[in-house]
Amino acid sequence: MSRGEAYEPTTRTTPTRARDRAAYDHDTVHAILDAGYVCHLGFVRDGSPVVLPTLYGRAGDRLYLHGSSGSRPLRMAGEAAGEAAGEAPAPGLDVCVTITHIDGLVLARSAFHHSVNYRCVVVHGTAHQVTDPEEKKAALDALVDHVVPGRAADSRPGNAKELAATAVLRLDLREVSAKIRTGGPNDEPEDLALPYWSGVLPVAPVYGAPIPSDDLAPGTPEPAYLSAR
Amino acid sequence: MSRGEAYEPTTRTTPTRARDRAAYDHDTVHAILDAGYVCHLGFVRDGSPVVLPTLYGRAGDRLYLHGSSGSRPLRMAGEAAGEAAGEAPAPGLDVCVTITHIDGLVLARSAFHHSVNYRCVVVHGTAHQVTDPEEKKAALDALVDHVVPGRAADSRPGNAKELAATAVLRLDLREVSAKIRTGGPNDEPEDLALPYWSGVLPVAPVYGAPIPSDDLAPGTPEPAYLSAR
Repeated sequence: MSRGEAYEPTTRTTPTRARDRAAYDHDTVHAILDAGYVCHLGFVRDGSPVVLPTLYGRAGDRLYLHGSSGSRPLRMAGEAAGEAAGEAPAPGLDVCVTITHIDGLVLARSAFHHSVNYRCVVVHGTAHQVTDPEEKKAALDALVDHVVPGRAADSRPGNAKELAATAVLRLDLREVSAKIRTGGPNDEPEDLALPYWSGVLPVAPVYGAPIPSDDLAPGTPEPAYLSAR
Repeated sequence: MSRGEAYEPTTRTTPTRARDRAAYDHDTVHAILDAGYVCHLGFVRDGSPVVLPTLYGRAGDRLYLHGSSGSRPLRMAGEAAGEAAGEAPAPGLDVCVTITHIDGLVLARSAFHHSVNYRCVVVHGTAHQVTDPEEKKAALDALVDHVVPGRAADSRPGNAKELAATAVLRLDLREVSAKIRTGGPNDEPEDLALPYWSGVLPVAPVYGAPIPSDDLAPGTPEPAYLSAR
């Protein structure tokens, strides 16, 4: 599945099963990342796992995640950075970020071979708080534009107070893998004549008509980037 | 938001921010769980977080997750159980299971107040491998029926070899919280007259027409439970 540049597989990005579903090339990984905007962020707190949904954006080989400066993972990354007190590189927060798109339900004749078509990217690494003001502004623009392309330039930019209330985490894309399942069910040959329907039920997120705020300033047009969606 | 029975909040199921978005009542939590079938399973491996998408089902106050007997989290839960060798309760696998539905993109006049409408459930606890054959069969039926209601009875049940190749994890619903955001953007009063469109772009998963397998036995009808979807 590789073409062009690729991420180097590691022990933890090499699946124990279904290795033919794994991919590491940049084109495949970036396309999956760019098709979504909600990730599941995993980190360890007091020795136990925590998984929270959060928004992300991508800029080149960097993922940006954001949250309130007071939220747990962002405080933890900040505290970790604080401990270093400028003397050593901040240790940051050990994270796993997973993005999953569901493309179809796969119905086999046998219960065992039921499956789901999906595209998934898993990123392992250490997330660091972004402290450089220019990088932070660019990251927040990337986040907004990741959710609704074109929107960052068509909204009021954050002021100093808002930027201070928002924390941004950066996660470099280094230890990364994609996993993809496509196609129909893999039924056993002896099951093909069974009287059960088999096939795929496709599914995809669909956007409805935009609902304007009640207090929208009169004459404000619906932006083209929304109508296109 | 509470009504009827509710899960007891704990330190880690009490959000540090936006506490008004949290809910613990069974009706709210179960409705969010029943509206989905893919969760993000978090566990700790060699001290680092791992987050993987996987299918789940619910039966009462139990979540069931399944995977290959050879997959990492299921082996880890199994190894943990094996250590106990029947002398003490198996320690199981410390997990966090998160289910997220995205309902809309919330576009505010200010970049800062952009948000997402969502329904999310986070479950903390210890997952154990299901070893009782009857519970395992019922759990697998619950899993298939969770994805496509009515399908378990309309497919070939698993045989002994298939059941052995499938591992099922049970996670009791005890430390559980829901978090929900609804409604439009919360713009600052001084931003209301700005010329930027604001409102909500609804989004929901939509199912397409079922695609039958090429080798479907002639005359096999499309099941009503699929057409309804």
